[in-house]
Amino acid sequence: MAKVKKQPRPKALPPKGFRDYFGEDVAERKEMLDRIAAVYHRYGFEALESSAVETVEALGKFLPDVDRPNEGVFAWQEDEKDWLALRYDLTAPLARVYAQYRNDLPTPYRRFAMGPVWRNEKPGPGRFRQFYQCDADTVGSASMAADAEICAMLADTLETVGIPRGDYIIRVNNRKVLNGVLEVMGLEEGPARDDVLRTIDKFDKVGEAGVRELLGKGRLDASGAYIDGVGLSVDQAEPVIAFLTSKAADTAGTLANLRAAVGDSVTGKEGIAELEQIADLLAAQGYGPDRIEIDPSVVRGLGYYTGPVYEAELTFEITDEKGRKQQFGSVAGGGRYDDLVKRFTGQAVPATGISIGVDRLLAALRAKGRTAGKSLGPVVVTVMDRDRMADYQAMVAELRNAGIRAEVYLGNPKNFGNQLKYADKRNSPVAVIEGGDEKERGVVQIKDLVLGAKIAENATLEEWKSLPSQYEVPRGDLLAKVREIIALHEGG
Amino acid sequence: MAKVKKQPRPKALPPKGFRDYFGEDVAERKEMLDRIAAVYHRYGFEALESSAVETVEALGKFLPDVDRPNEGVFAWQEDEKDWLALRYDLTAPLARVYAQYRNDLPTPYRRFAMGPVWRNEKPGPGRFRQFYQCDADTVGSASMAADAEICAMLADTLETVGIPRGDYIIRVNNRKVLNGVLEVMGLEEGPARDDVLRTIDKFDKVGEAGVRELLGKGRLDASGAYIDGVGLSVDQAEPVIAFLTSKAADTAGTLANLRAAVGDSVTGKEGIAELEQIADLLAAQGYGPDRIEIDPSVVRGLGYYTGPVYEAELTFEITDEKGRKQQFGSVAGGGRYDDLVKRFTGQAVPATGISIGVDRLLAALRAKGRTAGKSLGPVVVTVMDRDRMADYQAMVAELRNAGIRAEVYLGNPKNFGNQLKYADKRNSPVAVIEGGDEKERGVVQIKDLVLGAKIAENATLEEWKSLPSQYEVPRGDLLAKVREIIALHEGG
Repeated sequence: MAKVKKQPRPKALPPKGFRDYFGEDVAERKEMLDRIAAVYHRYGFEALESSAVETVEALGKFLPDVDRPNEGVFAWQEDEKDWLALRYDLTAPLARVYAQYRNDLPTPYRRFAMGPVWRNEKPGPGRFRQFYQCDADTVGSASMAADAEICAMLADTLETVGIPRGDYIIRVNNRKVLNGVLEVMGLEEGPARDDVLRTIDKFDKVGEAGVRELLGKGRLDASGAYIDGVGLSVDQAEPVIAFLTSKAADTAGTLANLRAAVGDSVTGKEGIAELEQIADLLAAQGYGPDRIEIDPSVVRGLGYYTGPVYEAELTFEITDEKGRKQQFGSVAGGGRYDDLVKRFTGQAVPATGISIGVDRLLAALRAKGRTAGKSLGPVVVTVMDRDRMADYQAMVAELRNAGIRAEVYLGNPKNFGNQLKYADKRNSPVAVIEGGDEKERGVVQIKDLVLGAKIAENATLEEWKSLPSQYEVPRGDLLAKVREIIALHEGG
Repeated sequence: MAKVKKQPRPKALPPKGFRDYFGEDVAERKEMLDRIAAVYHRYGFEALESSAVETVEALGKFLPDVDRPNEGVFAWQEDEKDWLALRYDLTAPLARVYAQYRNDLPTPYRRFAMGPVWRNEKPGPGRFRQFYQCDADTVGSASMAADAEICAMLADTLETVGIPRGDYIIRVNNRKVLNGVLEVMGLEEGPARDDVLRTIDKFDKVGEAGVRELLGKGRLDASGAYIDGVGLSVDQAEPVIAFLTSKAADTAGTLANLRAAVGDSVTGKEGIAELEQIADLLAAQGYGPDRIEIDPSVVRGLGYYTGPVYEAELTFEITDEKGRKQQFGSVAGGGRYDDLVKRFTGQAVPATGISIGVDRLLAALRAKGRTAGKSLGPVVVTVMDRDRMADYQAMVAELRNAGIRAEVYLGNPKNFGNQLKYADKRNSPVAVIEGGDEKERGVVQIKDLVLGAKIAENATLEEWKSLPSQYEVPRGDLLAKVREIIALHEGG
């Protein structure tokens, strides 16, 4: 007889870089997204849930002569024909949807979207290949009022989810102003301009002095490696530095500095006028620079966007796992991008929007204690007599019908200790016990597990005696007593 | 100069079999899933959101010697190593998660999950390759109380989302009873048994007479093709027929018929005892056969499950697009499967659960008019004077702060007709108008668009005159008047 090769057991693991979310983690994220959606909805934005899978052609990330799509997305070929891929963000699908439905959708089209996106990148600690995004965009409006609205909505959103005013700042910059600066420098197109753009992108990390060095001869970086500079003279580099450091004590001052930086550039002046319009519109609605400010040092995304750029930063400090204090940093960003739909239709369609980093914002709320935290688990009705399961089921039904989360123990009831361990693992506030004796006497035992745990931890013998954590009540009082105990602990 | 080949524009379409969901469709589904989640939560089930991507190995659908995974899932190979795939249901990931976290999870583990799954199947009308599932399962309990609980929870869920009692029935069968019948027939293993199982699966379609023919010589099917039968004699086929038609006027009668059908089979008797336990537990909680009944004619899934099998059917008629009345049919199904986790750990873990067909249930609710339907859109503040955008933004801010959904028109304001057309497309209840003249006089014009549309459609000239749909109010009364109009239409 041929020997049958035994199949090895599959590993019980998700693919590298993927993870699962349990119970409270799912609930907390849902709670936050629901609150965000309510704000977006109030602002007139409509939900859109696009397909998770797109054609690679529609995503537009790949060269036509590449046999297999580049890294960055998860893609596969269908029947030796089309390449399909998981969406890597929510903006590319929006462009496809808008191009597809442009005759049916209202113009401007305000839409929000929330859901997972996938990146085929090297996973690392805290870096996952599937994560949530939460976007709001206005397609089809060139008005700065659309940008101002997005910024105001972002401020409202942050406050609604639990970031108090003063703990965040939304900073606004404009790509056109930078273009004006580059124009003044005579760097309108070509490799030198791209080098300058790339250098500006490092401003967050290396600061003013670092950017000065990188625009000039070069810089010794922290690792000891020497990074070649762009090779501009000190004078040549000056407009870029002036731009990046033009933030003044108030908006008028900042705008004056920017005007000096862009000189006669038409594009530059246009960008400054846009920033001024946004600031005026926001001021009229009461969004002052304590919440939303013009800040030319915001460089993230300046290379990608075509007009205003926004970034929301949390300004409070958190303590990291090593006990060091650090600023929380960016939780959302966005800007105006006017070319996205053009790939499909040939017509440029103005668009502007933001994306919230869901996991980062959630982490911030947790760090500030703004999430509900570990909530009470269900009441557990224990099984003392397996033939009377119907009695126990009737108890949980009674509790549930009163809106109380409750369950009967469904494991092997033989070992009562296991039932209490289970209740503990479930974070149950209350265990209900009805043995044969109780049944006969028409009573139930109700164990206050929260109080029981506290007593077990801290109480002196006297307290332990004076603080009973188990009550015998008539069966008819089950609901009332359980309710009383839960109310006590939910309050605390 | 070399001619640059122009890239054709990408098609603005999702891949075949995929679709997008807009506004109300997203909101309606979310509303339904939120209600379902609330019931599951009250029953003590915990949310689980597992990774959308699994290793093909963990999904376990493919033979090891197949170079490329079979049809059925979307799969791709990572770096010439592991095959990854999109999950095709929520049960296979549950098995992986339970095996992975079994030492940390409570036992039994009650979990619910809702989210998209993907099937690499041929798309057709109304058949999509990405759709939602909504599951609840209890892992680690062999007790029939777990099965009874799932059935009760399913009944509560259907009523909570808006299917009234009497409009649904949950039917329960048991694979072990069928096994008992096959045992009595001497068909315990082998091809003949599989033939009988396949034939039973057609009971839904061909009925009792059809199954009789198919168990015997064969049958001329509707298309005119002759289907060969299993070849049993009339006597041999009798126990199967007796099993399928054993439903009596009440549970006791049905169980008595089943007892006759399984004779001395130990497995068969065990299955009947399980059905009896489920019925008793449900009766004790007040779930009678008007909601959940024992019905051996339920064959869907009998081949897959190992014990009790459940199916929820909607019993009301709907009218299809051709005006024909038809029963709505099944919206949820499930059962007990005791081998799922074994692949990973070597140990059999009892499990039981249901899956709700989200799109079917949503379609049923729509057919019954139980969804919110088309809701009012946002208030649209029109732009009469583009320099006063800040004034208009202040109006929408005022409305939003009062909880009213509102937006300013962000398109080109030149053509006022376009602004009203936009408001119409947005299903706006109210348009607000403030031109220079109104501004000077301190008033705003408020247009009741719902009433306006009604008048335009139906009114006589007299009514039209007596029912003004546009009001001039002091600017200070904007909020009050808008509120009044919205309240009027939301009530109606």
